[in-house]
Parts: sequence; structure tokens; C-alpha cells
Amino acid sequence: MRASANRIRQDIETIAGFSSSGPGTNRLSFTPEYWAAVDYVADQMAALGYERKTTVHGNTRFRKGGADWREPGVAVGSHLDAVPRGGRFDGVAGVVAGVEIARLLDAMGVRLGRPYEVIVFAEEEGARFGSVLAGSKALVGRLTHGELGAMKDAAGTSYLEALGERVAHASSAPGGGFGAGDVASYFELHIEQSLVLEAARVPVGIVEAIVGIRQYRVTYSGVANHAGATPMRLRQDSLAATARAISAVEALAAASPTGVTVGTVGMLVNEPNAANVIPARTVFSVDLRDTDAAALDEIGERALDRVQRIAEERQVDADVTLTADSAPVVLSSRLRAALIGSAGRRGIAYLEMPSGAAHDAQEIARVTDAAMIFVPSVAGRSHCPEEDTPYEAIALGVDVLLGAVQEAGERAD
Amino acid sequence: MRASANRIRQDIETIAGFSSSGPGTNRLSFTPEYWAAVDYVADQMAALGYERKTTVHGNTRFRKGGADWREPGVAVGSHLDAVPRGGRFDGVAGVVAGVEIARLLDAMGVRLGRPYEVIVFAEEEGARFGSVLAGSKALVGRLTHGELGAMKDAAGTSYLEALGERVAHASSAPGGGFGAGDVASYFELHIEQSLVLEAARVPVGIVEAIVGIRQYRVTYSGVANHAGATPMRLRQDSLAATARAISAVEALAAASPTGVTVGTVGMLVNEPNAANVIPARTVFSVDLRDTDAAALDEIGERALDRVQRIAEERQVDADVTLTADSAPVVLSSRLRAALIGSAGRRGIAYLEMPSGAAHDAQEIARVTDAAMIFVPSVAGRSHCPEEDTPYEAIALGVDVLLGAVQEAGERAD
Repeated sequence: MRASANRIRQDIETIAGFSSSGPGTNRLSFTPEYWAAVDYVADQMAALGYERKTTVHGNTRFRKGGADWREPGVAVGSHLDAVPRGGRFDGVAGVVAGVEIARLLDAMGVRLGRPYEVIVFAEEEGARFGSVLAGSKALVGRLTHGELGAMKDAAGTSYLEALGERVAHASSAPGGGFGAGDVASYFELHIEQSLVLEAARVPVGIVEAIVGIRQYRVTYSGVANHAGATPMRLRQDSLAATARAISAVEALAAASPTGVTVGTVGMLVNEPNAANVIPARTVFSVDLRDTDAAALDEIGERALDRVQRIAEERQVDADVTLTADSAPVVLSSRLRAALIGSAGRRGIAYLEMPSGAAHDAQEIARVTDAAMIFVPSVAGRSHCPEEDTPYEAIALGVDVLLGAVQEAGERAD
Repeated sequence: MRASANRIRQDIETIAGFSSSGPGTNRLSFTPEYWAAVDYVADQMAALGYERKTTVHGNTRFRKGGADWREPGVAVGSHLDAVPRGGRFDGVAGVVAGVEIARLLDAMGVRLGRPYEVIVFAEEEGARFGSVLAGSKALVGRLTHGELGAMKDAAGTSYLEALGERVAHASSAPGGGFGAGDVASYFELHIEQSLVLEAARVPVGIVEAIVGIRQYRVTYSGVANHAGATPMRLRQDSLAATARAISAVEALAAASPTGVTVGTVGMLVNEPNAANVIPARTVFSVDLRDTDAAALDEIGERALDRVQRIAEERQVDADVTLTADSAPVVLSSRLRAALIGSAGRRGIAYLEMPSGAAHDAQEIARVTDAAMIFVPSVAGRSHCPEEDTPYEAIALGVDVLLGAVQEAGERAD
């Protein structure tokens, strides 16, 4: 039995309609349009006999009516919140994949040895309350109830206050624990958000690891002087120094032995920023990612060293702040093998690859076995209205996922 | 007889008091504070028997009462307008030098063979009406009366309307011609606005030429993608391309055979400018200056070539606009020799050097002999409240200037 691209299309197009405004998708966590999307998923699940449970952190879980919530399940999940002016596939594709698998299991009359579960994580994008992966972090105990209460949106409403408008117990309940005793195997299907699958012409990516991130904000301070009157040898040009640092970050990443490292200077602010004045102050970001913790440490050290050396060579001051630091997460070899086996049985080509973006799976991987599958992003576009993935491609990914869910659902005991 | 650092100090401090607000000097052309500064100069000149004449372009000229305005004079000039939050020396030092020379000629009882003249040029900075050197350009016929009428300040008041509040005939009078028949020799003393004299520990610079400027605005357009998910080899990063262009501009200028070339990227705006997004659009300025027209042409071509090659190598689009293009101006060898002779007779060390900044002298040089002398800027600072030059250093410059004015004032006929 195969996943239906038509049903997937209908799910995704319906959910895309739950948006506060256009262009693109505008659906922040815990807004009316957000709950409308969750309710749509709940209706689909209810038609298959699934019950809905909202955690005290605002995540939504679905299991068959009468199922034991304490029995370790096999879960498929992702998120339904979106960045402003975002796309219709980011997160949604993964939740819809979970729904479609529930439909397929039902249609096939398959009852897994473990309870099948679909999870919708809240505030994955961090677009409303400023902290990415908030729902999954809270679920595994890495954000406390107090921290959720302190996270505020632009209007000053806290995460728990916003959630409490819908869920009565949210503001007072303690954080519920979640671990391998709740879910034995977690799968997430997600759009790739880049060009690798499209460039390789392969329909499915099986994620080996989610990168760790080392991110710095560097400020180079030089001396503003007249661009015409100051000879090259007497300059302390903060932007010329920054240009060297940008090239150094790029070269370090490109030369990394892991072949996975990426290094990006995405943000740069220059002062006084006039064509006829030598720049005096340039602030820029350095974002380094790798799936290998040792390699990430090493490139982080090397990048810092280059940033400092360039500053010394060019007589500018360097001020460096660590702005993000997360460790790589290697995904479950058992579940990756299940995905690979499923793809092989179906003759679907796949690529083993890293995830350069953060996903809820990396939080769940801290407490239980987790794995991810990618489907191609057209032209690599994401977080924009042009975000696109062919529905047939998502259906192929669901097919691979179905086999792995069935395998993970077999009880060893 | 030597110039008085004390008188120069008093003049400059008094004129610094004519400022609309602090910090720094705030004195835009044709404002009450501007006319107060001109009136102060007029009072000093009147005490020595000089008459004042305001040209239809808003420049102010001073000659001895009864002198023939049609006889080719020997002039010393500069400007009294200032950039917002500017310094007290830029322009003012040159006007005060002219006043001090009038005092010295008077005290010595010297009557030159040609009329001595002091000129205050209007709107040199372009800070009110947006066009630098406006007064001197209009005087030599490079800005028409119609163009002055079309130049507006931020409040929508035109150059001629603002001037007309003080000078009755400004708005209707045709532009008056000005050339070698009016002034046979023009001198301008100015602060260096950079570090060359201070670094060389030499008190006086004699300017050989004023640089020509070739300025471009470049836009590199690449593709925004996820900074984590996009491998280095699949990127079209507009900022990484710009970093190469900045380094190329710097290297081209530093390697220029003239030794005078400067190349600056002073302005850079990056989009979408987020640490986790590969830059898609980076706009930057390229400012190239040289006193050698052929060398400027060549480095301009080479810089454009590098900008295009980098774009091709990195698969970004390049859009280039020429935003400024002025030819170098070689100053009068006769007047430079007079300055050098004067410095030599007084035992004052000097450096022959280019001017990397624009000055009114470059406009006057189009119609008659012109020369410039620089005095040191402390730490190279200019166009800021910290702008500073020791009054003793200005007095030394005036001493050199005095000898040259006397030599130029001798009639050959």
C-alpha cells in the first residue's frame, strides 16, 4: 500500500489556509490560526479513532482511543508553527506524514506491537517567543515551566499565558516528563530546506546526524578617516579586516576534512558606512556547523584564531561574543537502518546526509531513539512563500517512513 | 614678521562659537550662524580697510577699499560652512589664514603689486544642498544659476532662496564670470584631514595635485539559503563574493605604481542580514582616487574587471553604477615653487603630497593658477568634534603662505 499524494496535497493545502495574512504562511504558535491547524489534524486523527492530548508545554499528542499512554510508542512528529511570511511545507509536511501513516495503517488493518503516535511540537521556529525548539525542549525537560513563563512575545504575552487561553491547566501545571518510557522510537519527516537532494537528483535523504552550531558575533573596531586623504599604509579599516575574516571562515569550512562543515558570515553591519569614509566599526556573525563535535571544536578554535590574527595584522580591535553553542546529535543507528531497509525494499534511492538545520528530533534524540528523513526542497528555498516540495516526493518519503514505523513497531519481547 | 598663533586662536575660537548647537560645529551655509561667521571675518577685514562683496552665487570676497575689482588679484580663500557635528578647523583655518595675512601685510606696511583678496566660498561641504564645492563651482561657471535654484535643502528651500534671505539680488541676477582676469593667483591653506604629516612629523604639506575620483556602487545578487543546510559548494553567497572584491580593491590600490592611489570600500549593506541565512544581496561602494589620470583610468578598469570576474567565479550577478567621476587637478607649478621657496627661506620642513580630499582650489584651478598648503590634523581626525590642529602649526603654515603671496603679488609687468 502506498501513500496518497492527493491526500497529502489536500492536508497541506488546507493547513496553508490557516494563516493570519498573506503573502506566504503566517501562523505563530498558540494563535487562532495555529489551533485551527492543530484542530484540522485532530479531526483527521479522530476519524481514525485517535484521541488528542495536549501536554502542559503546549505540544499535542495523538494515540488510538483506549491506548495506554504509558506504554512506549512509535511516534511520528513535527510542527505546525511557521516563521512570518513562511512556506507551507516546513514542519507541516512532517505532521501530515504522521497522519497519512495513521491512515495507511488503518487501511491496511495493521495493528503495531507498540502504540502508534503522532506529535505536533509547539513553537519549533521560535518565531513568537524567540526560542527555537521550545516545545520539544520543554517536553524533554530542557526548558522549565518557569522558563516558559518568562518567554514573552512582542506584545509581552508569555508562552504559558498564550497557551493558557486554550489549555486551562497550562499556567499552573508542573512540567511533565517525557522519555524512552513514553516513546521508544521517534521519526520525523522534514523538507530538506536546501539544494543537496535536488542537486543529487535523489528523492529521499536519511539523516545521519544533526549539526552542532558554534556561532560568534565579532566586532572589529578601527579608525574612521577620510577615504581620499589616508594612504593605504596608514589605515585601520574595520571592513577590510572583516573581508579577510569572511574569506578565512569560508576557506576553513571548505577545507574541513569532515566534508560536512559549513561556515557562514550572514550578518554584517558597518559604520559609519559612507563611501568616502574608512570604516571604523564592523560587526559580523560567524556561524559554524558540523556533525562531528571534535571537528566543530577545531574549526571554532581556528576561526577564532584567524579573527584575532587578522585584527593584529590590521591594527583593529577584536571583540568576540559566543552567541550560540550546541553539540551535534547523532541519530539512532537502529532507526536509520530501519529507514534504509524500507527504502531498499521499495527500490527508492536515498542519500545519507547531515541536517544543517535544527529540528525537534534533536531534542527527542536526547531521551530516546530518533531518526529523520528529508524530502527535496525545490531550488532549496525555505522560510519563504516560494518554499515548495512536490506532493509525490512527500508521498515517497511517507512510503519509506511507513516501512520503518512498522519495523520499529514490532515488539522484541 | 611672523603670524600670531594667538590671533589665529582667537579667530578660530570666535568662529567656532557661531554654531546652531553642540556637540561639535553645526553651521550650514546661509544660516544665521553662517552669516555671523562671515560677518566676523568682514569685521576683521574692515578694521584693515577692506571692502566686502557678495557674489550672486553667495561667495564673499574682500579687497582693500578703493581697489579695482577688475584687476587680477592674489587671493587666499577657503570656506566657513561645516558638516553637521563637524570640527572647528575644516575651512575656517584657511579663511583665518587669509585674514592673518591681511593683518601681516598691513603691519609690515607692504602694498603688493596686485590687489590682495580673501575669499569665503559658500557650501563647500554640500551639507545643506547636497552638492560639494557648490560656491566655487558656480563662481567658475560649472554650476549655472538655474542649477543653484534647483538645489534644495531638507526643508525644500533652494540655494538661491536661502541666499536671497540675505542677499537681495541673488535670485534674479545672472551668474557672474570669474577667471584669471579676476584672480591671477589663488592660495588655499587647509587642514590635511589625515595622518600623513603627523606620521612624517613634518609641519607643512605642499599639495602637488588633487586626486581624481572614480566611484562605483556595486550590487552582487546571489541566492538566500539556509546557512546550516547548504553545503559550501552549492552556495551563491553575495557577501562572500563582496569580501573578495573588498580585498581586491585594497590590493589593487596598495600595488599601484603611482604610490598615491587609494581604494576604499566604505559603504556596505547586506540582505537579508541574518546570521543563519546565506546573504542574497550585498550593495557596496568602491571609491578609487589618484592624482594621475591614466593611473586612475587603469585602476578603475582593473577594479571593474575584478568585480566582474569574482561575480562569474561565484555565480552571483553584478550590477555596477558609476556614482562619481572627477579628473585629477594638477596645481600650479609657479605657485608651488613660490610656496617651496618661502618654506626654504624660513627653514620650515615641508612634504610635497597629494590631496585625497576635494577642495575649492580644484575648481579655481580650472580658470587660474591655484595652489594649496596643508597643516597637520591631530590623529588625522576631521569632520568630527575631535578635529584638531595646533594653532602654532597653522601659524607656521601662514608664514609659508605669506612669502608665497608676496612673491605672487609682485607684478611681472
